[in-house]
Amino acid sequence: MQSDSIIDKIKKLEKHVLALEGTPTTRKMIQGKIQAYCENFIQNLKEGIAFNAIHEDACGFYDYPICENGYSLDEVLDLFDRSVDKPGLNAASGRHLAYVPGGGVPTAASGDYLAAITNKYAGVFFAGPGAVRIENQMIQFCANAIGYTGNYGGNLASGGSVANLIAIAAGRDAHKIKGANYHKTVIYGSKHMHHCVDKSIRITGLKECIYRDIPLDDKFRMDVGILSKQIKTDLSVGLAPFMVIASAGTTNCGVIDPVNEIANVCEKFKLWLHVDAAYGGLFCLLEEEKAKFKGIERADSIVVDPHKALFLPYGLGVALVKNVEHLLKSQFYEADYMQDAIENRNEISPAELSPELTKHFRGLRMWLPLQIHGVAPFKSAMREKLLLTKYYCDELRKINNIRIVNEPELSIFAYRYEDPSKSKKENNSINKRLVEEIHRDGKVFLSSTTIEGEVCLRIAILSFRTHLFEIDLAINEIKTKLGAMTINS
Amino acid sequence: MQSDSIIDKIKKLEKHVLALEGTPTTRKMIQGKIQAYCENFIQNLKEGIAFNAIHEDACGFYDYPICENGYSLDEVLDLFDRSVDKPGLNAASGRHLAYVPGGGVPTAASGDYLAAITNKYAGVFFAGPGAVRIENQMIQFCANAIGYTGNYGGNLASGGSVANLIAIAAGRDAHKIKGANYHKTVIYGSKHMHHCVDKSIRITGLKECIYRDIPLDDKFRMDVGILSKQIKTDLSVGLAPFMVIASAGTTNCGVIDPVNEIANVCEKFKLWLHVDAAYGGLFCLLEEEKAKFKGIERADSIVVDPHKALFLPYGLGVALVKNVEHLLKSQFYEADYMQDAIENRNEISPAELSPELTKHFRGLRMWLPLQIHGVAPFKSAMREKLLLTKYYCDELRKINNIRIVNEPELSIFAYRYEDPSKSKKENNSINKRLVEEIHRDGKVFLSSTTIEGEVCLRIAILSFRTHLFEIDLAINEIKTKLGAMTINS
Repeated sequence: MQSDSIIDKIKKLEKHVLALEGTPTTRKMIQGKIQAYCENFIQNLKEGIAFNAIHEDACGFYDYPICENGYSLDEVLDLFDRSVDKPGLNAASGRHLAYVPGGGVPTAASGDYLAAITNKYAGVFFAGPGAVRIENQMIQFCANAIGYTGNYGGNLASGGSVANLIAIAAGRDAHKIKGANYHKTVIYGSKHMHHCVDKSIRITGLKECIYRDIPLDDKFRMDVGILSKQIKTDLSVGLAPFMVIASAGTTNCGVIDPVNEIANVCEKFKLWLHVDAAYGGLFCLLEEEKAKFKGIERADSIVVDPHKALFLPYGLGVALVKNVEHLLKSQFYEADYMQDAIENRNEISPAELSPELTKHFRGLRMWLPLQIHGVAPFKSAMREKLLLTKYYCDELRKINNIRIVNEPELSIFAYRYEDPSKSKKENNSINKRLVEEIHRDGKVFLSSTTIEGEVCLRIAILSFRTHLFEIDLAINEIKTKLGAMTINS
Repeated sequence: MQSDSIIDKIKKLEKHVLALEGTPTTRKMIQGKIQAYCENFIQNLKEGIAFNAIHEDACGFYDYPICENGYSLDEVLDLFDRSVDKPGLNAASGRHLAYVPGGGVPTAASGDYLAAITNKYAGVFFAGPGAVRIENQMIQFCANAIGYTGNYGGNLASGGSVANLIAIAAGRDAHKIKGANYHKTVIYGSKHMHHCVDKSIRITGLKECIYRDIPLDDKFRMDVGILSKQIKTDLSVGLAPFMVIASAGTTNCGVIDPVNEIANVCEKFKLWLHVDAAYGGLFCLLEEEKAKFKGIERADSIVVDPHKALFLPYGLGVALVKNVEHLLKSQFYEADYMQDAIENRNEISPAELSPELTKHFRGLRMWLPLQIHGVAPFKSAMREKLLLTKYYCDELRKINNIRIVNEPELSIFAYRYEDPSKSKKENNSINKRLVEEIHRDGKVFLSSTTIEGEVCLRIAILSFRTHLFEIDLAINEIKTKLGAMTINS
């Protein structure tokens, strides 16, 4: 009787729960409408703006709080359109030429969809052997690109920041840095290091260490002479140099620190070399670009972001460690089993090399596009971006009073308007206004930065949707806005 | 001339790059085939097995290395089917009754798809105001469920492990724990604490602190009397108690530590209370279950996993901190701007409260299902799982020599076969064999654990696809396998 009553209750609830699964018809309808929305979104990208500064519409949510029975899909998609899609930056647009543009190759979205429906557990080999092998294959792909061979290990993290965190923690543990010695332990970085590396230092507890901000040379790269001298000075007063953090390329200027020379210094003084190559590293896939990264394979740890140079949607950064044992020591949980894990390294599991246990099977968003398209169009896209950058730079030079602040090494560089008859302060405010005018328009999205007290514009060309058309638009915007400002001034 | 030559090269590359975008037709074809695959996958779940121990097929990848021009989608999906989908655990199956089962509500997959195509940047308010508001709304939803009000803050992390990491770091920074004092700083946890919390302690550098493994009471909950006594002892010898980590519920037994009593102790001794409620916390959405979690809202930090009790695909854990200032102090980058950020906390950005900067817009995989279905069917599903657990337990009691190791509080509990005429060792090996037999079959997936030296079976009922049918299957499997083993022995 009691049991029957439970069964009745369970059966009644079961019927209600089926709404979460839907039927073949409702599933087709729902995903069909979402795909139609996405198709429309893609088709409007070419003509649409890249930035919409008006935020009011993003308040639409307050009219749609989470409620007991939900809303119609049409209402929900309309709300999404008005309140999420329209306001702010359109990171998917080829006209988004600031920060590092977001990718969003459609087949990667299909990969996310497939991963979420099948929900394969990619954390541990035993549970999802194929899923783990896919992730390991993607790590191998990145490792081979930058030149790691042998006993390396890696992890597909949720982005460059967590990948940097994994690498910094591995360095800390490999060098057995202890709390009692933080005050005399020294970390070296450059002025143009990405701030997420500093956040990683803080999260791992290393913020108490001494941090040396090594100045840049005239090409905005870490000055290796100063680095070397600083290490010697630190050693001479009894401090303990520990880690050097280099960038390839930097966020501000897209330049590559002289990794090989830094590696020489690290080797000499037995320091952990970490290279944040989140933005630049995967350009190593191009044979002709490899020389720029000379020595990167000597780094103890490296970060590369497939959601940057492989044009995937936001959410995939890769931590690579030259010696997998350092990564295992830092992340493996059951130390007793470590030996076996190292012996069977072909089948090492992501959970053994990362802070994550249960996670999105994110290898699929990279594997599916690479399997369907092959590497060739990705390489073509990278080559195209490098040429577009050169072209943009050439065109800028033709504009009166534009100065190229740094020669582009990859697809990011800084430039600025500089009227010789005006003060630095006046020129700074002209550059600020120029960016504001471009933002107001929203046709293309460019950002500014400050380098040595000078306000600069900065372009980052790395969307697979950025072609000649978009670059010509950007050049035209600069010319038009500058023209208007000059006439008005 | 030079410029023409660049333009020619760019245009030639552009044509090749268009493969990454595809055309409306190819996009429709590709996502259509993937959806058809997924539809077939969903329809086979009811009849299909939950575990396939044969791993050989997962080697299929070695025949499909990443290559220049890719493979046909049919080949790729066939490879996926053989090598990823089939081997190992089927986490999407309602017959997966071990660990904490993976969800995978189909509308969440649509959310991932929409997020990946539109690629909205959800890290910073300025860039994606609507996207950030969606994430904040999801945090609010979780915070309200567990009873936080006022000045809390939170982050949608990639899973429970990273969410725990964020919370532990916030506690460390709020209490200004310094490296020089690690050796006298004390952290308290229980024997059934999830190991990812220990990993977080290691990543944050706190592994050098003293860790006290507080024993469990007879209901497998942290023994508050012993905790209190231990803190007093530690204080009396000059140590510095810092943090208590409680669980709601535990991985092994699904029980909830006596949070309110632990909160009293923490309040008295001014300790940071962290509650890992990754598995259990969202059961607070059910009014009738709230009493079990009494005091949880007094915790300084809490983790809840929507990819568990909200049945979403793997990849979403939420860190909640009672006082957002603690989270900002730990994760905000530009300290100068912190005051403004706190003042405008309605529009606080995820990047200010987490290690991540660029990230998957994962709020959408939670928001879309909640908007489309409403909360009601999610609550029904949770209620159904609780009743199914009670039913399973009742049915187990009817089987000869089965002992319920812990009374279920939520939807996880442990039980074991125990023949009084046999030794503990003999009974242990019977339980081991029982699990092996069930695995060999794969019809349902159950796992084992060891509690106080006794090998137990453990069920975790938390798939939205687990209904009466699947639970009856599991009961039947236990009966059949035990019967066969008893006859043979």
